[in-house]
Amino acid sequence: MKYDTNQLEINKVQKSKIEEVNFENLVFGEIFTDHMFVCDYENGQWQTPKITPYGPIQLDPSAKVFHYGQAVFEGMKAYKDDEDQIWLFRPEENYKRINKSSARLAIPEFPKDYFFQGLEELLKLDKDWIKKGFGNSLYIRPFVIATEECVSANPATKYKFMIICSPAQAYYSGEVRVQFSEKYSRAADGGVGAAKAAGNYAAQFYPTNLAKEAGFQQIIWTDANTHDYLEEAGTMNIFFRIGDKLITAPTSDRILDGVTRKCVIDLAKDMNIEVEIRRVPVSEIVEAARKGELKEIFGSGTATVINPIAGFGYKDEKFELPKMKDSYGKSFKDRLMKIQYNQAEDKHGWRYQVK
Amino acid sequence: MKYDTNQLEINKVQKSKIEEVNFENLVFGEIFTDHMFVCDYENGQWQTPKITPYGPIQLDPSAKVFHYGQAVFEGMKAYKDDEDQIWLFRPEENYKRINKSSARLAIPEFPKDYFFQGLEELLKLDKDWIKKGFGNSLYIRPFVIATEECVSANPATKYKFMIICSPAQAYYSGEVRVQFSEKYSRAADGGVGAAKAAGNYAAQFYPTNLAKEAGFQQIIWTDANTHDYLEEAGTMNIFFRIGDKLITAPTSDRILDGVTRKCVIDLAKDMNIEVEIRRVPVSEIVEAARKGELKEIFGSGTATVINPIAGFGYKDEKFELPKMKDSYGKSFKDRLMKIQYNQAEDKHGWRYQVK
Ligand SMILES: Cc1ncc(COP(=O)(O)O)c(C=O)c1O
Ligand SMILES: Cc1ncc(COP(=O)(O)O)c(C=O)c1O
Repeated sequence: MKYDTNQLEINKVQKSKIEEVNFENLVFGEIFTDHMFVCDYENGQWQTPKITPYGPIQLDPSAKVFHYGQAVFEGMKAYKDDEDQIWLFRPEENYKRINKSSARLAIPEFPKDYFFQGLEELLKLDKDWIKKGFGNSLYIRPFVIATEECVSANPATKYKFMIICSPAQAYYSGEVRVQFSEKYSRAADGGVGAAKAAGNYAAQFYPTNLAKEAGFQQIIWTDANTHDYLEEAGTMNIFFRIGDKLITAPTSDRILDGVTRKCVIDLAKDMNIEVEIRRVPVSEIVEAARKGELKEIFGSGTATVINPIAGFGYKDEKFELPKMKDSYGKSFKDRLMKIQYNQAEDKHGWRYQVK
Repeated sequence: MKYDTNQLEINKVQKSKIEEVNFENLVFGEIFTDHMFVCDYENGQWQTPKITPYGPIQLDPSAKVFHYGQAVFEGMKAYKDDEDQIWLFRPEENYKRINKSSARLAIPEFPKDYFFQGLEELLKLDKDWIKKGFGNSLYIRPFVIATEECVSANPATKYKFMIICSPAQAYYSGEVRVQFSEKYSRAADGGVGAAKAAGNYAAQFYPTNLAKEAGFQQIIWTDANTHDYLEEAGTMNIFFRIGDKLITAPTSDRILDGVTRKCVIDLAKDMNIEVEIRRVPVSEIVEAARKGELKEIFGSGTATVINPIAGFGYKDEKFELPKMKDSYGKSFKDRLMKIQYNQAEDKHGWRYQVK
């Protein structure tokens, strides 16, 4: 199938709503820019892509996304440097991953040219929404939903691919303490855990509410079979530092192959930090914490970049982590953000300029 | 919280579209009746419920259902007897189950009075859509979706509860052959398999496509840990008959507690058929098939009632099942349908009249 990028239709807003937004006081994911990108799939192919004013969409109550959760998404960010240049960070990875997620959910893949053209035109139109300043960014949410009007449980014949954008400030979630899961699970072996499938997230809400009641902010999920191995958090991959060594779980069909995770592994190599990619027994981490050898736990993900973990709970015990002066997490965050904001050399070629 | 059922607002269609429908040639789940039931949740409570003409709904592109799959549903049927009386079948079970599903997905429970009042008023308004005749029914789809406009991954503060209805004919899917899953999984231990969570269904589409390419119509899912035990199909619980004994897997947090399954177990008792509710090793079923002792496999579910399985595949082998004269599946289907259509005594009190 050949997709022609001369077709993109652009319908601009009459008047921007940017004046109404207080950029000093943004709640994550609540405010959206003036425009959105939309492309419908029907009759076996993706139709003419469009950029339109941001606004509600109409769906039949029988649209399959409501009933069978045929929906996948991505999360990426755009940054503005001091010269007003706009940068994305490894967008190719997000493009590949949304199609990998789609394939697992029997959703047709989205054409690469449409993705990049739509994304870049949208960012150029809404460029004033990307604020300068270390920590400011525009969070970008590509997603696909099944729109076919039919309540029989099989793959849809109609879909909607969209990109919406939300301005974001540096993410500070307060001190985060996590619970190691003993009972609930996020993903099955042979399931959809490696896909950014919508249903994976709702499944975590109830156990996370229970963890919150017990005084934690998030859960680190363990393998569903034995609950003996640590896997990842709800929207972050997880790294453990024992002594001077980093440990993180290998990706699998249960664990999302995070872009930030990959960067941390590469940066660690650059910094001569040893990284072991292998199963992470809960017992090893608890033991290391007891002996004072567990120096750090941190999460990696697009929204937070690097999120330090202040402590964890397992069974009825709680452990506090030391406050490290030479924190690995902090170094990675700093290096990553400097690359993202075009303030440091980009030797891996991760930056992608929108012009 | 007290919910007042004097509030239901009803807004009828000007003109029914029933004339346009060919009731002799219905595809499952494609045509909907004139009206729908809608109730919104916001500010911490369910608002005034409404019955309105069936039609599209408007949602913000950031509505959480699209991104995090916070959505659950039910499936039930209404039947009309020869005296034009309308019957539901164990609707209390569906009401309880949707709230159980909701709880697991951190969705607020829906009030019982609203559910039954909405359901019954809707059926009375659209009663002409329920056709007489053994096998005809109105398929009823209650569902709840998260509508809050925000792309942060936590439970929504706004929801929409809806009921839509679709006329259905006797379900005949042709001969069904199933594949026993060796690699893919439907549900994790500690996951949401026991909930009718939207995301559980999309997760099955891709493996089911592979099974179809291999010549099967459906998959019987095995436990995600070992793939050694048979659990259930995509929208049916599964029974195996070895000799004169029935075997079915116990419900768990991976398996849906099917209403039809419960009825089959009760009817088997009535008929003095032995039922073992225990784990079902794949090896036992394959062995029994080899020895000619495996007499039947059938699925149970609201849409199909009882669905006989003609054969199965496991690893590279295919097995055909005998055509039984004294088929248990057929007896159960017959007994169940006679109760549903008010043609037989209802000693368990399963029928529920709408008047
Ligand atoms: C389940 C899960 N794990 C990990 C991540 C981190 O991935 P990335 O670094 O690509 O944002 C995310 C968020 O995207 C996620 O949803
Ligand atoms: C996963 C699953 N199993 C089993 C069933 C059968 O349940 P019931 O007999 O209540 O329709 C269904 C359908 O509702 C289902 O979705």
